Amino acid sequence: MGQRFEPTIENADAKGRVVLVCEHASHAIPAAWGDLGLPEAARMAHIAWDPGALDVARGLMRRLDAVLVHAPVSRLVYDCNRAPDMAGAMPAKSEVFDIPGNAAIGAAERLARTEAIYLPFHTGLHGVLMRRVALGLRPVVVTVHSFTPVYFGRPRAVEFGVIHDADPALAMAIRDNAARMTRLNAALNAPYSAADDVTHTLRVQATPYGLPNAMLEIRNDLIADAGAADAMAEMLAPVINMGVAEIQKQARAS
Amino acid sequence: MGQRFEPTIENADAKGRVVLVCEHASHAIPAAWGDLGLPEAARMAHIAWDPGALDVARGLMRRLDAVLVHAPVSRLVYDCNRAPDMAGAMPAKSEVFDIPGNAAIGAAERLARTEAIYLPFHTGLHGVLMRRVALGLRPVVVTVHSFTPVYFGRPRAVEFGVIHDADPALAMAIRDNAARMTRLNAALNAPYSAADDVTHTLRVQATPYGLPNAMLEIRNDLIADAGAADAMAEMLAPVINMGVAEIQKQARAS
Repeated sequence: MGQRFEPTIENADAKGRVVLVCEHASHAIPAAWGDLGLPEAARMAHIAWDPGALDVARGLMRRLDAVLVHAPVSRLVYDCNRAPDMAGAMPAKSEVFDIPGNAAIGAAERLARTEAIYLPFHTGLHGVLMRRVALGLRPVVVTVHSFTPVYFGRPRAVEFGVIHDADPALAMAIRDNAARMTRLNAALNAPYSAADDVTHTLRVQATPYGLPNAMLEIRNDLIADAGAADAMAEMLAPVINMGVAEIQKQARAS
Repeated sequence: MGQRFEPTIENADAKGRVVLVCEHASHAIPAAWGDLGLPEAARMAHIAWDPGALDVARGLMRRLDAVLVHAPVSRLVYDCNRAPDMAGAMPAKSEVFDIPGNAAIGAAERLARTEAIYLPFHTGLHGVLMRRVALGLRPVVVTVHSFTPVYFGRPRAVEFGVIHDADPALAMAIRDNAARMTRLNAALNAPYSAADDVTHTLRVQATPYGLPNAMLEIRNDLIADAGAADAMAEMLAPVINMGVAEIQKQARAS
């Protein structure tokens, strides 16, 4: 058994219902994978991580008294929001960038990365959630992502996307609250949706347990430094809080 | 952290596609839980385990060259086919039996049992499945159960039930093959169905990954000793094999 890259768990004893997840928190490539054949600029770009997402997630964690679980390794080595047999788990190409170190991954290497990164991440997150379920706390799963303002040369107008999987209730509540309470250009299932296979964590960790869930996507030019990320968290915390309160009310009424 | 009851994994390097799961293989109650206030007859009855299921599963394992994952603890302590917040996870009553040791379980005890039994079981099974997914093997998940011939005083006519969750393809193929190739009284979604919350393992371990899956239920009077259980495995192995071949053919055609 090789090295295992356990997720980082912050504020584990949080009193709030929300468990924040940041699969793309880090651009770190452990030594075993060298530089994947990429220049530094590519290893720091949005293909390697979600710039600003961890800063926003930490801001939300403090304001919502939420748990935060985040992955310590770049998604170029293993994207924890993808199953081991998905092409995007260890992508050979991401947007316009070829990733030489992922061009010819054999079965043994896919297995090694799955054991080193994917399994520890999802086992750790599963433990956090199930311990709260056992205590009767019914956690709410919110994943925090950022997206690039220009993709394949095209600018994206949306600023805040909220994506759902099988259960849309929380995502719809958050989107509606954002449209009402902020000046953000907020949209449901943008800039992509579950049909693009981007909701793996929700599907695995929330849907089978009936836990309310949503995936947040923030355009990364709006959270380019720590101050901007914290201002975004300040804006989004009440939006999420109210969304959670609304679905609780719906659940009690039904 | 207390004692962890890891699942038993047999034939881990199996060449076949099927991963067999037996959540109710054992009636063992670890010392920490005493006898749960039950007389021996109740601790050996179907409320404590699925009599014969492990013997059938082992017979299938040999004939299908399948992996087998089974739980080492009675479902009276923790039913690994239930999430930690389901009433059936640590039942205070099962059919006509009260379970005194489960009558007043507080949050700390629910958490302790979840950590000791549920999390190791599902983490172990998840690892088996994801390692195969990483290797490109696309495992097929088949859970093996038995049911009591008389329930709340009523005899049950069905002998072999096949239960599905969101994806019915494999369950339907196995039921049809059983009706054609055996003399068993075979039925779909009997003696109960996913609506009764009995498909937790399928929902958590198979559906989110798009893995073919089915839950088998065998009336336990037909597998009351090792010889009868092995004869049942001999009868069901080709039924399952052909079902897996059929859904592979369907997948290639689509």
